[in-house]
Amino acid sequence: MPLPFQHLTSTKQLTRGDTDAILRVAAEMEGVLKKGGSDLLHGKILASLFYEPSTRTRLSFETAMQRLGGQVVTADGLQFSSLYKGESVEDTIKVVNQYADIIAMRHPEQGSADRAASVSAIPFINAGDGPGQHPTQALLDLYTIEKERGKIDGIHITMVGDLKFGRTVHSLSFLLGLYKDIRFTLVSPAELTMPEKVTSFYKEKKIAYTETENLEDGLDADVVYMTRVQKERFEDAAQYERLKLKYILTAQQLKGRSVTVLHPLPRVGEIALDVDPLPTAAYFRQVRNGVVLRMALLAMLLKKA
Amino acid sequence: MPLPFQHLTSTKQLTRGDTDAILRVAAEMEGVLKKGGSDLLHGKILASLFYEPSTRTRLSFETAMQRLGGQVVTADGLQFSSLYKGESVEDTIKVVNQYADIIAMRHPEQGSADRAASVSAIPFINAGDGPGQHPTQALLDLYTIEKERGKIDGIHITMVGDLKFGRTVHSLSFLLGLYKDIRFTLVSPAELTMPEKVTSFYKEKKIAYTETENLEDGLDADVVYMTRVQKERFEDAAQYERLKLKYILTAQQLKGRSVTVLHPLPRVGEIALDVDPLPTAAYFRQVRNGVVLRMALLAMLLKKA
Amino acid sequence: MPLPFQHLTSTKQLTRGDTDAILRVAAEMEGVLKKGGSDLLHGKILASLFYEPSTRTRLSFETAMQRLGGQVVTADGLQFSSLYKGESVEDTIKVVNQYADIIAMRHPEQGSADRAASVSAIPFINAGDGPGQHPTQALLDLYTIEKERGKIDGIHITMVGDLKFGRTVHSLSFLLGLYKDIRFTLVSPAELTMPEKVTSFYKEKKIAYTETENLEDGLDADVVYMTRVQKERFEDAAQYERLKLKYILTAQQLKGRSVTVLHPLPRVGEIALDVDPLPTAAYFRQVRNGVVLRMALLAMLLKKA
Repeated sequence: MPLPFQHLTSTKQLTRGDTDAILRVAAEMEGVLKKGGSDLLHGKILASLFYEPSTRTRLSFETAMQRLGGQVVTADGLQFSSLYKGESVEDTIKVVNQYADIIAMRHPEQGSADRAASVSAIPFINAGDGPGQHPTQALLDLYTIEKERGKIDGIHITMVGDLKFGRTVHSLSFLLGLYKDIRFTLVSPAELTMPEKVTSFYKEKKIAYTETENLEDGLDADVVYMTRVQKERFEDAAQYERLKLKYILTAQQLKGRSVTVLHPLPRVGEIALDVDPLPTAAYFRQVRNGVVLRMALLAMLLKKA
Repeated sequence: MPLPFQHLTSTKQLTRGDTDAILRVAAEMEGVLKKGGSDLLHGKILASLFYEPSTRTRLSFETAMQRLGGQVVTADGLQFSSLYKGESVEDTIKVVNQYADIIAMRHPEQGSADRAASVSAIPFINAGDGPGQHPTQALLDLYTIEKERGKIDGIHITMVGDLKFGRTVHSLSFLLGLYKDIRFTLVSPAELTMPEKVTSFYKEKKIAYTETENLEDGLDADVVYMTRVQKERFEDAAQYERLKLKYILTAQQLKGRSVTVLHPLPRVGEIALDVDPLPTAAYFRQVRNGVVLRMALLAMLLKKA
Repeated sequence: MPLPFQHLTSTKQLTRGDTDAILRVAAEMEGVLKKGGSDLLHGKILASLFYEPSTRTRLSFETAMQRLGGQVVTADGLQFSSLYKGESVEDTIKVVNQYADIIAMRHPEQGSADRAASVSAIPFINAGDGPGQHPTQALLDLYTIEKERGKIDGIHITMVGDLKFGRTVHSLSFLLGLYKDIRFTLVSPAELTMPEKVTSFYKEKKIAYTETENLEDGLDADVVYMTRVQKERFEDAAQYERLKLKYILTAQQLKGRSVTVLHPLPRVGEIALDVDPLPTAAYFRQVRNGVVLRMALLAMLLKKA
C-alpha cells in the first residue's frame, strides 16, 4: 500500500492509518530479513547524506537498503564540512536527485529536512535535523513497543533522563498521540523536564502524564524509555557531570518487574550491564527493529510495498 | 567500440573520433538509465580514490558504476590525509590494482594523474588533478551542449567568472578545439581573465574569441557557462569578497533569450534562484548528463561498450 | 570445511590444521577471482569498522567481500572519533550485530578485538588491534610464502627493519611456529631488535634464529621480509630520522640471488624502485594474496566454504 506522501520529514505528518500501514509492512520485512533479504529494490540507489555523523542511523539505513537488494552511495559529515563550499541544502538535494532514487539525510539545522523535501523530486527521509525531528527513530520505537508489548493503545510509558533536549522522547510523544489511552510518567531532574511544547500537546490530546524526579516512581509502567544526557547540550561542564548519571537502571531495580526497557543508544552508563541479559531488556532488539522499519519505509516510499 | 587508449587523464589526448564515440555511447546510456540500469558491469569493482574531497564528482562516478551493476570501494580525502603515510601515488595505484578493475582518482597535485596512469595495469580515469585536468567534467559539458543545442560545431559559448583559475573552462576550451566554427565570449574581471595557455590555443586553432568585463555582452550566445569564483584560490580575502559576486545571472537578464545556462556547480550565488525554473536552465540536467557520460566511459574503458 | 572457531582475533588461536585449511581455500579463491568473482556470499553484509584508518586493509576486506557477491557497510576512523560518544566497544559490536552478518574491525587498543569477539553473535575478524595482533596480515604473508616458494616447512626467512614495534613480524613469527624447520635471520638496528616475547617463543619452539645489524647477512635466505620504520612509534624525531632508512634493499644487492622479497606496505624507501621489476619482488602479489586470503576467511567463517 503506497503511503499518501512522498517524503517523511516529521512524525507530525503521520495519521494512525499511516503508522498502522508502516508497522504492518515492517512486520512483513521481518520475514524478508529472516530469509536473508530480497531483490525488491534491485537497481535502486539510496543516497545516504550525513552532514552530521551518526554511524548508527547511517548503517541502519544502509543495511536496510542492501537487505532489499538496493545499493548505497554515502556522503558523510566530515566530508561535507570541508566540502559543500557554501552550497545550499536545496541545491545539494537537486544535485543528488540526479544520482539516486531516494535520499536519507541527517543535518544539524532544524528545518533543513523540510527545505530539502520541498525541492526533492525523489523520496526524501529525514534522518534527524538537529533539535528538530527524527521520525524513523520514533517509528522504530513505536514498532518495538508493539512487538514487545503486543499493543500500543493503552500503554503506560515512562521516559527517563534528559527530557528537555532529548529529541527522541519528543518525537515519540507526538507519535503516541495517535493512539488511545496512552499514559506517561516523566522522570527527569528539574533542569531537564519535558518542554512545554510537548506537555501542552499532552494536554490538548488529553493524555495523562505525571512528572517526577524519582526513577522508582516509573518502574511499574509497561515500558521504560531510558535516554542519555547529551554532553554537547550543556555549556556548564559541572552541571553535565552532576546530571549525567543521575538515573542508572539496574537489574536489582527491575527484579520482579515486567517493564520493557528501551534506549535509543548509545548508552554511557544509564543502564547497568547487568540489565542486558534480562528478557525485558529490549534495546538491542530495538536496533534490529530499526532495520526492518527502515526496510519498510524505503520500500513503501519507492512504491514497492 | 573500444577507445584507442586504456587511461583517461586529459582532454588533450582525445580526437574528434573519440569524443564522437563517447558521446554516442553516453546517449545509449540514457536508455539504460531510463530502464533502471543494467548488469553490464556486474562483478566489476571501481576504486574511487579521492585524496581531495569532491562529493559531487565522487557520487557521480559511484552511481554511474552502480547503475551498470558494478560495485564500488571508496577512499576519501580525509582518510588519505592521515593515512597514506608517505606512500607514493605510484605505489598506491599498484596496490589498488590488486583490488579493483578500474580506478577514478582525484588528487590535489597537477601531474599526479599522469604518474598514476603510467603504472596502472587497469583502466585509470583522472577525476581532477589540482589545477590540472578534469576530463570527465569537460566531456559531460560537451555532451550537455550537444543535447541542449542539438549540435556542437558552430556553437557560440560565453564563459563567465573566474577564467584564470577555473579548471573546467580550460578543459572545455581545449576539448572544443576539436570542433568546427566555435566562438568564445570570455567574461571576467581584469584580475581573472583567461590565461595565455588557453588564448594561445585559441589562436593556434584559429578560434574566434572576444574578451569583456560585461556579462550582457555574452548573453546572445548559444550557451553561457557560469563559474564560481573559488575562495581557496585567493590569498587576499578582500579581493575575493569584491569579485565573488561580480556576475550574477538573473531571470530578468535572460528574458526573451534562448541561451542555454550551464554551471559545473556548486553555485554560491552566481545564478539567481529565479533562473532555475527556466527551460534554458540546464545545470541540473548537466549533473544527470555527468552520470550517463561516466557510465559510457566506465563501460568503454572496461571494454564492455 | 568449517573452521573450529567463530571469530579470528589472533594467530595464536590457529593450529596447523587451521592454517592448512585456510590456505587451501585461499588457493581455490584464486580460481574464483580469475573467473571474475562469484555469488557465494550474495545477501551477506560485511561491517567494516575502522576506528583507526587503514585504507589498504579496509579496501582488501571490502573487495574480498564484493568479489564473493556480498555487500559492505563502512564506518571509518574519522567518523568514529567524533562519533562513538563514549559507547563501549562491546555495545558497538552488539549494535552492529543487528545490521551485518560478519564484522572486520581495526581498533587502536590492544585487547579490543578480544573484547569485541566476546560479545559478538556473528563472526568477528580482528583487522589489527593496536600493538596487538593482525592475524589476516600474517595469514596472507604465510600464503604468499607458500605460493612463492612452494612450501613453508623448512623455510629460511630474514626479517628486516623495525622488529621491536613491527606487529606484522611478531604475528608472522608466531604463525611460523606451527611449521617445521623454520629458520630466522633478524636484521635490525640495536634500538629495534626483536622483543623478548618473540625470541622466547623461538626458544620454546626450538626455532633457530640469528640476530644481526647487517642486511647482507640475511640475503641468502628464501624470503626477506622488509618492514617500514614507523614514525608514529618514536618520541625522538632525530632517532627516527637516523633509523628510518638504515636498510635499503636495492636490485644491486639482489643480483644473482633468488630470495623472495616481501613487504606489508606501505614502503617509504626501504625497497628501491629498481627492485620492483625483479621476478622475486613479490610485495604487490602479496597484496593480491591478501584479497584471496580474506575471501577464504569470509567464506569459511560464514560457513560457505
